[in-house]
Amino acid sequence: MSILVLGTVALDTVKTPFGEKKGMLGGSATHFSMAARLFTEVHLVAIIGGDFPKKYIDFLKRKGIILTSLIQDRKNRTFKWKGRYEGDLNTALTLNTELGVLSSFKPSIHKEQRKIKYIFLANVDPDLQRELLHKIYRPSLVGLDSMNYWINNKRKSLMRLLKEINIYVANDQEARQLSGEVNLLKAAKKIHSFGPDMVLIKKGEHGVIFYSDKFQFCLPGYPTDKVIDPTGAGDTFAGGFMGYLARVKKISASNIKNALVYGTIAASFNVEGFGVEKTSALMEKDMRRRTAEFKKFISF
Amino acid sequence: MSILVLGTVALDTVKTPFGEKKGMLGGSATHFSMAARLFTEVHLVAIIGGDFPKKYIDFLKRKGIILTSLIQDRKNRTFKWKGRYEGDLNTALTLNTELGVLSSFKPSIHKEQRKIKYIFLANVDPDLQRELLHKIYRPSLVGLDSMNYWINNKRKSLMRLLKEINIYVANDQEARQLSGEVNLLKAAKKIHSFGPDMVLIKKGEHGVIFYSDKFQFCLPGYPTDKVIDPTGAGDTFAGGFMGYLARVKKISASNIKNALVYGTIAASFNVEGFGVEKTSALMEKDMRRRTAEFKKFISF
Repeated sequence: MSILVLGTVALDTVKTPFGEKKGMLGGSATHFSMAARLFTEVHLVAIIGGDFPKKYIDFLKRKGIILTSLIQDRKNRTFKWKGRYEGDLNTALTLNTELGVLSSFKPSIHKEQRKIKYIFLANVDPDLQRELLHKIYRPSLVGLDSMNYWINNKRKSLMRLLKEINIYVANDQEARQLSGEVNLLKAAKKIHSFGPDMVLIKKGEHGVIFYSDKFQFCLPGYPTDKVIDPTGAGDTFAGGFMGYLARVKKISASNIKNALVYGTIAASFNVEGFGVEKTSALMEKDMRRRTAEFKKFISF
Repeated sequence: MSILVLGTVALDTVKTPFGEKKGMLGGSATHFSMAARLFTEVHLVAIIGGDFPKKYIDFLKRKGIILTSLIQDRKNRTFKWKGRYEGDLNTALTLNTELGVLSSFKPSIHKEQRKIKYIFLANVDPDLQRELLHKIYRPSLVGLDSMNYWINNKRKSLMRLLKEINIYVANDQEARQLSGEVNLLKAAKKIHSFGPDMVLIKKGEHGVIFYSDKFQFCLPGYPTDKVIDPTGAGDTFAGGFMGYLARVKKISASNIKNALVYGTIAASFNVEGFGVEKTSALMEKDMRRRTAEFKKFISF
């Protein structure tokens, strides 16, 4: 089944101990798509500006991403993020954010896309996320990501939206902030009580915690020793996770566990190169090989 | 098979968001013993002062710990540690350390104890660790823990000792400091190249990484939502891990994996109470129950 992702397509400038790359193709919807495309057809909903390089549009098309609802606003500039990583590369230091087209973004989708069953609302204004969600006829599974900024500044909107979605995806800091709980298991329980059936807390290199009424599960991160640029790892994770679920359709415990593994493996490739360098070149066989290795690494 | 642990028996004063406890029974050898005793006979090698409460000696005896080589130096005071935890309780803030008897500690063991095959050298001066190790006839398995202080101030002694032991146990900070590598897998490889066949890096609530030539393995932490006092969690982990290996004797991949699980579970009980409150009351059936639950939590 197809999946639809609402998010950003950005131009990223990133500096890590391994170098600096300027104006790379980035953004939550881009990173999500690079992983999800390995499992299913991906429809991308986002906005770009007049300065967005045509080569990146061609690149996304070549990767099979459906761009029907990628709006180009020629009068404004593409959303840009500039950041730096240091030390263990676990935390991004934002140097500059240029919203550009994002500040007037009104997502719209084609009629046919309203029938899509698998939806991922990557991090944008929760009101926009809700607006898009309401355009979908009868979604089967809706995943949601947010960030500190919205948790602080649009908490009411976010809380309302949480009642309408199935899976809330957060990193550890966001989960703590939204729930007011320091302990991540308590945080997951609390967020679950806000609405979502399933809560997924990403702990970066330390893996993920999954919480639902029916079962809880946790996975360590894939222990790569080659972290080059972690930008987009969380969205890549979500892409592998949601993409796999959209392919298998049945939301069983064993499918969810496998989806978490695929998310982990997709994210492990993401961090091994700048931007989408590694994930865009990924093939199903690469995923399969590393997945088998990872399962060995974590199983008795 | 019996296990011998060299380490500290201390009086701890700990303040966490859940309260303050003064003069609790603590120390690396104590915490280690509380977990290891569930699997095998534990011989404790440490020193206490004239002020050490008799009730704690009786308590250790009641728990079945062999105290033949617990020296009491009546002219000096017991080693004391005072610390505080805040926020997510991941990092201890040391408020005060009183070495007391530790500054003149010369570990000595009884002749019969020289035949013990399983040895754990908990964190004390690496020269003392080595001195004790050389008293053992033919150890089968030697585990070693150290800390930032010795890595900085007695690096040469520590490096020499690393060539004589089998398992180096470190937390993430110590592993980074000793290896000069930020990435923990790289750190484990580097430390492995210093001598130990096996390297075990503890990441607190995030679990452990195990590295050896033959296999690598990682485990998330047990996701307890009740962290009261994490003091001694690392030593408790080592006690469960080494204790289990001493019982099963064969150092196979599957035994090591199970040992890591038992270490994890023992540590999860430790953090749920002050000092040895929880671990001292532990029975094998408690371990078995939580182990089964944990295996469900982490397995496909």
